Amino acid sequence: GKAHWKRNKDKNCSTCHPLERDFRDIKHTTLSERGALREAARCLKCADAPCQKGCPTQIDVKSFITSIANKNYYGAARSIFSDNPLGLTCGMVCPTSDLCVGGCNLYASEEGPINIGGLQHFATETFMQMRLPQVVPPELAGNRDLPAYQQPVALIGCGPASLSCATFLARLGYSRVDIFERSATVGGLSSTEIPQFRLPFNVVDYEVQLVKDLGVKIRLEAPLSVKARRTLASLKSEGYACAFLGFGLPNPKLIPAFKGLTVEQGFYTSKEFLPLVAAASKPGMCGCGGGAGPSLPQLSGSVIVLGAGDTAFDCATSALRCGARRVFVVFRKGFTTISPVPEEMDLAREENCEFHPFLSPRKVLTREDGRITGVEFCRTEQDDNGDWREDEEQIVRLKANYLISAFGSGLQDPDLIEAIAPVKLNRWSLPVVDSVTMATSEPWVFAGGDVAGVAQTTVESVNDGKMAAWSMHRYLQFVGGDSASEEIPVEPRLPKFYSPIDSVDISVQMCGLRFENPFGLASAPPTTTSAMIRKAFEAGWGFALTKTFVLDKDIITNVSPRIVRGTTSGHNYGPSQGSFLNIELISEKRAAYWCRSITELKRDFPEKVLIASVMCGYSEEDWTQLAVMSEQAGADALELNMSCPHGMGEKGMGLACGQSPELVRNICRWVKAAVKIPVFAKLTPNVTSVLDIARAAKEGGADGVTATNTVSGLMGLDANGRPWPRIGRQQKTTYGGVSGNAIRPIALRAVSNIARDMPGFPILATGGIDSADAGIQFLYAGASVLQVCSAVQNQDFTLIDDYVTGLKTLLYLKSLDGLADWTGQSPPTPVHQRGKSLLAIGQSLPAFGPYKQRREALEHELLRTRDLLKPDPASTGLAQRQRPVVKPVPKVSDIVGASVGLVGNYYDLDNKQQVVALVNDDMCINCGKCYMTCNDSGYQAIEFDAETHLPRVTDDCTGCTLCASVCPIIDCITMVPRVGEYVPKRGVPFGAALEQKQAAVIMPAQDSPA
Amino acid sequence: GKAHWKRNKDKNCSTCHPLERDFRDIKHTTLSERGALREAARCLKCADAPCQKGCPTQIDVKSFITSIANKNYYGAARSIFSDNPLGLTCGMVCPTSDLCVGGCNLYASEEGPINIGGLQHFATETFMQMRLPQVVPPELAGNRDLPAYQQPVALIGCGPASLSCATFLARLGYSRVDIFERSATVGGLSSTEIPQFRLPFNVVDYEVQLVKDLGVKIRLEAPLSVKARRTLASLKSEGYACAFLGFGLPNPKLIPAFKGLTVEQGFYTSKEFLPLVAAASKPGMCGCGGGAGPSLPQLSGSVIVLGAGDTAFDCATSALRCGARRVFVVFRKGFTTISPVPEEMDLAREENCEFHPFLSPRKVLTREDGRITGVEFCRTEQDDNGDWREDEEQIVRLKANYLISAFGSGLQDPDLIEAIAPVKLNRWSLPVVDSVTMATSEPWVFAGGDVAGVAQTTVESVNDGKMAAWSMHRYLQFVGGDSASEEIPVEPRLPKFYSPIDSVDISVQMCGLRFENPFGLASAPPTTTSAMIRKAFEAGWGFALTKTFVLDKDIITNVSPRIVRGTTSGHNYGPSQGSFLNIELISEKRAAYWCRSITELKRDFPEKVLIASVMCGYSEEDWTQLAVMSEQAGADALELNMSCPHGMGEKGMGLACGQSPELVRNICRWVKAAVKIPVFAKLTPNVTSVLDIARAAKEGGADGVTATNTVSGLMGLDANGRPWPRIGRQQKTTYGGVSGNAIRPIALRAVSNIARDMPGFPILATGGIDSADAGIQFLYAGASVLQVCSAVQNQDFTLIDDYVTGLKTLLYLKSLDGLADWTGQSPPTPVHQRGKSLLAIGQSLPAFGPYKQRREALEHELLRTRDLLKPDPASTGLAQRQRPVVKPVPKVSDIVGASVGLVGNYYDLDNKQQVVALVNDDMCINCGKCYMTCNDSGYQAIEFDAETHLPRVTDDCTGCTLCASVCPIIDCITMVPRVGEYVPKRGVPFGAALEQKQAAVIMPAQDSPA
Repeated sequence: GKAHWKRNKDKNCSTCHPLERDFRDIKHTTLSERGALREAARCLKCADAPCQKGCPTQIDVKSFITSIANKNYYGAARSIFSDNPLGLTCGMVCPTSDLCVGGCNLYASEEGPINIGGLQHFATETFMQMRLPQVVPPELAGNRDLPAYQQPVALIGCGPASLSCATFLARLGYSRVDIFERSATVGGLSSTEIPQFRLPFNVVDYEVQLVKDLGVKIRLEAPLSVKARRTLASLKSEGYACAFLGFGLPNPKLIPAFKGLTVEQGFYTSKEFLPLVAAASKPGMCGCGGGAGPSLPQLSGSVIVLGAGDTAFDCATSALRCGARRVFVVFRKGFTTISPVPEEMDLAREENCEFHPFLSPRKVLTREDGRITGVEFCRTEQDDNGDWREDEEQIVRLKANYLISAFGSGLQDPDLIEAIAPVKLNRWSLPVVDSVTMATSEPWVFAGGDVAGVAQTTVESVNDGKMAAWSMHRYLQFVGGDSASEEIPVEPRLPKFYSPIDSVDISVQMCGLRFENPFGLASAPPTTTSAMIRKAFEAGWGFALTKTFVLDKDIITNVSPRIVRGTTSGHNYGPSQGSFLNIELISEKRAAYWCRSITELKRDFPEKVLIASVMCGYSEEDWTQLAVMSEQAGADALELNMSCPHGMGEKGMGLACGQSPELVRNICRWVKAAVKIPVFAKLTPNVTSVLDIARAAKEGGADGVTATNTVSGLMGLDANGRPWPRIGRQQKTTYGGVSGNAIRPIALRAVSNIARDMPGFPILATGGIDSADAGIQFLYAGASVLQVCSAVQNQDFTLIDDYVTGLKTLLYLKSLDGLADWTGQSPPTPVHQRGKSLLAIGQSLPAFGPYKQRREALEHELLRTRDLLKPDPASTGLAQRQRPVVKPVPKVSDIVGASVGLVGNYYDLDNKQQVVALVNDDMCINCGKCYMTCNDSGYQAIEFDAETHLPRVTDDCTGCTLCASVCPIIDCITMVPRVGEYVPKRGVPFGAALEQKQAAVIMPAQDSPA
Repeated sequence: GKAHWKRNKDKNCSTCHPLERDFRDIKHTTLSERGALREAARCLKCADAPCQKGCPTQIDVKSFITSIANKNYYGAARSIFSDNPLGLTCGMVCPTSDLCVGGCNLYASEEGPINIGGLQHFATETFMQMRLPQVVPPELAGNRDLPAYQQPVALIGCGPASLSCATFLARLGYSRVDIFERSATVGGLSSTEIPQFRLPFNVVDYEVQLVKDLGVKIRLEAPLSVKARRTLASLKSEGYACAFLGFGLPNPKLIPAFKGLTVEQGFYTSKEFLPLVAAASKPGMCGCGGGAGPSLPQLSGSVIVLGAGDTAFDCATSALRCGARRVFVVFRKGFTTISPVPEEMDLAREENCEFHPFLSPRKVLTREDGRITGVEFCRTEQDDNGDWREDEEQIVRLKANYLISAFGSGLQDPDLIEAIAPVKLNRWSLPVVDSVTMATSEPWVFAGGDVAGVAQTTVESVNDGKMAAWSMHRYLQFVGGDSASEEIPVEPRLPKFYSPIDSVDISVQMCGLRFENPFGLASAPPTTTSAMIRKAFEAGWGFALTKTFVLDKDIITNVSPRIVRGTTSGHNYGPSQGSFLNIELISEKRAAYWCRSITELKRDFPEKVLIASVMCGYSEEDWTQLAVMSEQAGADALELNMSCPHGMGEKGMGLACGQSPELVRNICRWVKAAVKIPVFAKLTPNVTSVLDIARAAKEGGADGVTATNTVSGLMGLDANGRPWPRIGRQQKTTYGGVSGNAIRPIALRAVSNIARDMPGFPILATGGIDSADAGIQFLYAGASVLQVCSAVQNQDFTLIDDYVTGLKTLLYLKSLDGLADWTGQSPPTPVHQRGKSLLAIGQSLPAFGPYKQRREALEHELLRTRDLLKPDPASTGLAQRQRPVVKPVPKVSDIVGASVGLVGNYYDLDNKQQVVALVNDDMCINCGKCYMTCNDSGYQAIEFDAETHLPRVTDDCTGCTLCASVCPIIDCITMVPRVGEYVPKRGVPFGAALEQKQAAVIMPAQDSPA
């Protein structure tokens, strides 16, 4: 029966499904939101991450993956576009195994490296769907009015190098940047050569739009050409102060045997073939559509592709889509001596192209009418010295109906060469270019991309443009700046991506204190020393608590080990611990140290909020002393630690005080009497009613509360019964504090409970805040500011960047009226399998065995007839991309407590409004988890088809939601309102309310087997 | 700089590191414990799992992966060996992409299918390290005394088919099973042909030992041969009642062009070459070693391998290890028309073998002295009809020094053919075999494996032997059984693997009740109906609670949605939810239903313990009524639900009672006064001191307590501030109960706290029990029996099998004296990278860039000189494998509460016994997570080398353990006792205890920057 269940290709299947006219995404790397979240969670976010070192544009990969893991897709896209204006294109086409992925430390584990390209694609494409414009960074926008920035700049060619160069020039403030493009299409090779199934045109169009957003002008059908009277010289005379040569190499390399062959005979160069395919398969590119556009080249029979670069493989896979029955990729060297990366060659391999190594073309065989019938090759051989020789005696002939030559391209066009005079050329007729500054022999002319002769990939071209932009900036300021302008350093300092989101104000006012953002460090290991708080402030954290300090008489010395990983998320080794348990006490440092540190930190960071965390026993004198010394040192506020769950309680501190409303009330009173600065009581969750304690704190005069400290627990014992952490030879432990995401539901409950009871009473939240996504939940629940610890333990202080952009984005998106179907930064889940949209939906066809075949046949039929140039509705509308901001962007204070009214008593919930489960068969992966949980933990309301493995929800569904809770595919199961009344099954009808014994005789219990 | 950080192969590197004499594991699938745990956690454990349908031996893949995920490696191995006695071999060599993996539902997600082979390898190899014998299942051991089971059985050939057949016969009770092997080596092709780097000999040896454990005798150098006077006829005359032909095909297929070529000329068949390589590279196989063993065939220059099956690829990769400089694999068809699975071909591809498709050998070219110099081929071509033709005019010559022919094998040996007479042969001279019964034309002779002509893989041969065993059993019972013996059904019912572990008694006595095992279902969704409890009992659960029921006046109707996935383990979609939150109330069914169900269930399952869970308000009459009706219905005990955290409390039930010691005390008194059966109070964790409540229950006369119910919480709000679950149009929610692993630390604390205070007071534990591994922790902490809910919601009732074998194993391993360095079922972590042992350790050489090159050079040097036949210490000692059971196996009661003494007050912990972190450079994957967390959350005590990315722990380490907590590699960082005293850094010396203001003038705080 294995054939029925087979999902992968059968090893004995030599024919694949026909690919004719199939231009759908074939990338292995494409990810759905689930795939992206899992992959991002798997990333270790390494120190000095090697992925970044492998990226030509030095994208901060670790940072953008952190943001994806935290559902901050704008944060990720911002990070990517900051370093690479063509980040979405590169996410799709970069040969990552030779770049970022090649250095991934997870190569050292069995799970293998991270799909970085796919993550980059996901984040930037999600941002694309937000339809927000790029803007000139506000701090540089003023440059646009300065004469030096108004010098005209000409960029030749609208491909990756020029688009990148133009972006950085425009971000710097240059206001007259013009791109001249020979053809009628933007994008260069990305549009005309890379096939739609690897890089759709709407992506190129989108990234060009981002460039235009900055004021860059693009002139199409404007070639550099003596004939067309546009040369470097003419541009200079028109007033252009600086020029960038960013065009591609227009002329195919041809071997003598192919001279004179024509398309009519069945011969194409890749330079002819790929643009024809692109024009006929890329919706949006020709501006035609509706049946009026160009048609695909019609191939048939066998096609020979010559070459072993990515262009050759693109020709091979494209040929299959133009009707070729078989494709032979023929190359001169062996498999181990050609140098494609796996991702270039694998697609052709999987699509059943045949490979012929060690063959060098000698002669093209033709019929009488000139049609190609085959190619004659001679064998090549590598001798022991590694030299190659061709053996004219060993002749191999391959039959073919078509021949596509993909031997690369060069610059031979004399018209173009003359137009770039007097730029000095090298022996390949390419400009001589300084590989660091990208300068040519003419001081005002720079070059990058293919024409500069070094870049082999899109991303390298992008970097050429980026580096050139800085050199051009230096040149332009040198020749056009006023004498007062600063000298521009050699080392590039290029501006980051900026959108309206980045201008959102997330500052918070609480108790007269201004927090520049609501994220701060809890009193915990990340604030062990003054130097660490300093570093955190420099990183951007809005506030910090000191680690809790005590009077010298109470000074402590910690035991070790004392901070251990949680076991609440399974056997999870590495970062992303869902919880930690600690038996760490408070600070080992003296109060004198902390007071001095407070003074110094406030001196150096007056705009940051610094709160002293203090603790002592139930003694008015001690509390007063600590409070006064903290206030005198300059602390902005005090947090009274009455909640440390281990150790301190045994000395009458921490928890020992915090569990009693009376003690809490009195302590707050004592402290409030002693100082003028705000005072917050840090509450313990280890009580029946955290609300009673919060009320007591308020009664005592506290200005607010921190909710909550860690939850007391025992993390685990090993199979030998030994605890961890265990101390010394005695191997003993004590109950410790559980922190992190595992306690978030407890902390959220505490916060909302207090906010509901005491509206407006300030709450500092802590407990599982690991992202803006988690943070905003606490704001909605009633907190004003947010304290973080475990997330920093899992990573480092740089997280603050992600939290800030994340919160700004969540607030900004609330101002848009077009994203009502989004949840935060998550768009609605498209109907997909493996992250790829489906062509034929509603057929209940799983992706295995006979159903897979049926689906493929159906899809093939749809593809055969559909207009390839008809735009996909999902990818259009870029012109109307700038959604109007119809509502003002909310402030943080606008959302604080906004959800409190939604959390109430059980009997406020309406048991007449019921839901039932709805399964989307097209998204279903047939795992049957819904069926299993419904069967053994629910209501036996899901049937599972024995042949199709599709689940079916029956009328017995009670809407419990277990199925949706264990379904691995986001939004595959949704809960929809029940039609009709819900009638519970009582087992025995109420009418039959007989005495129990009697009843047993009369009828068996309803659900028992007979 | 990317080259410095590169971990994968450079695309421009055409030479790999030399492989000469390198017989180390090269499998992609090999997993370390971390890798296995992550992969097993990723598995969805699907309904009607398609992986099992793709396994020729029908291994219950989902079940064994469940056990691995639960750290129950014996449970996994037992499941595997039950269906496949060569489960370890098959885990290493199965072409899984064409078998189990081919149907994996995760092909439908971007993360791709599960590495099932690697998991199978890991589990069985870990069990191998436990060194336990296989035994005949006790219920069948008695058969050995019956005459019908004493009939002698002869199996010919000691390869996979015979070993499998012998295992099942011996498990069935056959006591005279003899294997006759032609060679001096056990294992068949597994030993002589599959290379050491794919299948080491100690694995074969181990699995043979498992067969011998059952009493099977193996006679080596005992060929079936007329010359040797051992034929089927002679065996029959010796008294063998039944025979099985399980030998391989001895004769290589040769094409005419190769006739007469010799090894001296440079010609090998695979049948010659691979055994020579095996003999010289497999420690343990020849029984020689110490330099006296055979040497590898010495190859040099270029080697041509002919063929495209896995044997050809094994020849190619082996040739590289015998000195070949270059290897060409040449085959007649194209890449898309040969049929290796990727895992067969990929290793040869990665090791830079060159492929030549479309070439058919015509002539071998030789020097005057006969040495081979090359091979002449003609081109092959496939016409449009798919027919192949050879073109004698297109001649290709490849130079070569050696030629290895791997065109398969057959049975031509006339001596052997005569020896199996009168078995009828087909046109390929192979026995005619019934593919279902594996019977030959002779009723007493069966056949399987290669000789039967169908099996193409080891696993198929194993299944042949398995199927044949059943047929032979039927035949033997038919001819030799007494008339009273039952007829054997056609459908096989083969006995499972059995070891001494399976005899461990895990029953528990508590309050006069006997639990056959300590695992039961909590009062929760899995006990929604009587039918579900019935199904759970049938599955093997030891006990069950009913869902909580109430008097008719208190009957409830649930809202929906009400059970949602946890967010405590990150953005985790699918099963393995670390927590759930529910706002489900109690049973919607009437008390009458439940009482009737109790009666029926106890009638049908008298040996199971059934506990009625009941609830009402604070009313003596109501509690009495519920208790009495439950007792009358036949409940074994009562659980008083005084802890439901939502809804019921608002009606004065559940939590509303359970938070007050006084109410709990009285309720227990009322109920105890009313009934004689044991009464347990179910405690809420939502109190300051669960101990106070437990004490009250005891004072009230309760016989024990259940600790604990769910923890009250709010799981989360979405980015729009909407709660989940949210009810109806009002979108309101209430606080719900958090269950699952997230609350395990809270439940463990409660259990140990009660056990410490009230030794011997029975505790039923619940809260995050998802495995035997978690369960035993609760036993150590003081619980007697264990209630499960969330784990079943994540999966289904079949979990009980894993829990039972898991607990048996943990108890059994405690009786062994040789596993002191194990933790439960986890052996000590070997020094490894990617799960593979390192040859050169202690060199601080990371696995990237220049360090990788240095390591490879060093390893190559070690390999060049080492004795390949010297046994690896880790793989020897199978003879002494049966470790003596020196201590009795503990009972469950022996470990209940055993750890209670280790959990105490903070000040019992010794802060003089400190630890520090120790990093193993050889295991380090250079992610720097330890450095990051130490820097921003710790003590800045780890340095991180900028070039090698190796961390170094400095003297500033305080042993906090954050580094080990976030390190992704198990045991890469360990905490070791600190040498010397720990002196805390106080920031300001105590001598300098000046007034704070003054001090600030005198000196800056110690850790601040200058």
